[in-house]
Amino acid sequence: MEREKALELVKKQLTEHRYQHTLGVMETAITLAGRYGADEKKAEVAAIFHDYAKFRPKDEMKEIIVAQRFPRDLLEFNTELWHAPVGAYLVEKEAGITDREVLNAIRYHTSGRANMTLLEKVIYLADYIEPGRHFPGVDEVREMAKENLDRALIKAVQNTILFLMKKNQTVYPETVFTYNDLINKLED
Amino acid sequence: MEREKALELVKKQLTEHRYQHTLGVMETAITLAGRYGADEKKAEVAAIFHDYAKFRPKDEMKEIIVAQRFPRDLLEFNTELWHAPVGAYLVEKEAGITDREVLNAIRYHTSGRANMTLLEKVIYLADYIEPGRHFPGVDEVREMAKENLDRALIKAVQNTILFLMKKNQTVYPETVFTYNDLINKLED
Repeated sequence: MEREKALELVKKQLTEHRYQHTLGVMETAITLAGRYGADEKKAEVAAIFHDYAKFRPKDEMKEIIVAQRFPRDLLEFNTELWHAPVGAYLVEKEAGITDREVLNAIRYHTSGRANMTLLEKVIYLADYIEPGRHFPGVDEVREMAKENLDRALIKAVQNTILFLMKKNQTVYPETVFTYNDLINKLED
Repeated sequence: MEREKALELVKKQLTEHRYQHTLGVMETAITLAGRYGADEKKAEVAAIFHDYAKFRPKDEMKEIIVAQRFPRDLLEFNTELWHAPVGAYLVEKEAGITDREVLNAIRYHTSGRANMTLLEKVIYLADYIEPGRHFPGVDEVREMAKENLDRALIKAVQNTILFLMKKNQTVYPETVFTYNDLINKLED
């Protein structure tokens, strides 16, 4: 899908703030894709659509999670996790995106998963470090992202787990599986 | 089992340093049991035997994990986790301890688990805060343990996850399940 067409579809779904974030993720994802050898066009499309379902009503998201047999334990954890798998579903249904790699990059952009593809890693990290992000530790991850995609990703996932624990919030197990998998594959 | 008999059995299995640690866990566990209403005698026995298998050869521990059908994923994670379930098995077999509550407190003293019993919490925490322990954050948990067992336990589990992440080590999923379960049950 052409960039302009994709952006037009997404703009209607988002607040202005979230649309600006999406543009940041798009630019960052294309840069990371170029740097690490992922498909830049797929990175562009996945980035544009990654938050497509962000502002859908929780009831609608819940219904889709149940109807599509997405992992039921999602419902027991932070609702922030829901828009990723629901987004992948809606982007296929409503925007006609059928590329599985792109859809999986959207689906796993919040939780990650074991055995992430290069494109999934690019979208996860771009979402974390795009220029509009400002929180403790993000600059360190930005620097790491220039040198080593996996190490930057590990730091981002660690920061996410740390952030949740500081607020005494639960940690979605898939996030820990992502972390463990990346650690196990890390070359010394 | 009488304290002196139990200590005699355990002393043979441990280094002097680890035996002193065990005495610290015993005293702390009895105090915590008294404070929070757990069975003090069971706390004493579980504490005395909690590290019974600590110095068994890794090969022997591995064989027991496989033969007894303990969770196979233990073998993929830090070997430090092995002595707890193996210890519960050996304490029953070699020392004749048959009380399931005591054996479970030994079994889960390193990983924790969802739905921990009061005795399991007491042993986990006593192992973490006994007077011989010196590491960053332990004093904070000691103080919390005077006020609220679950909050102290949450802090101990958080510190454990944090410690592993700082060293870029994997986190055993059961530890995260323990954490999530404690958070979900925490009263505001």
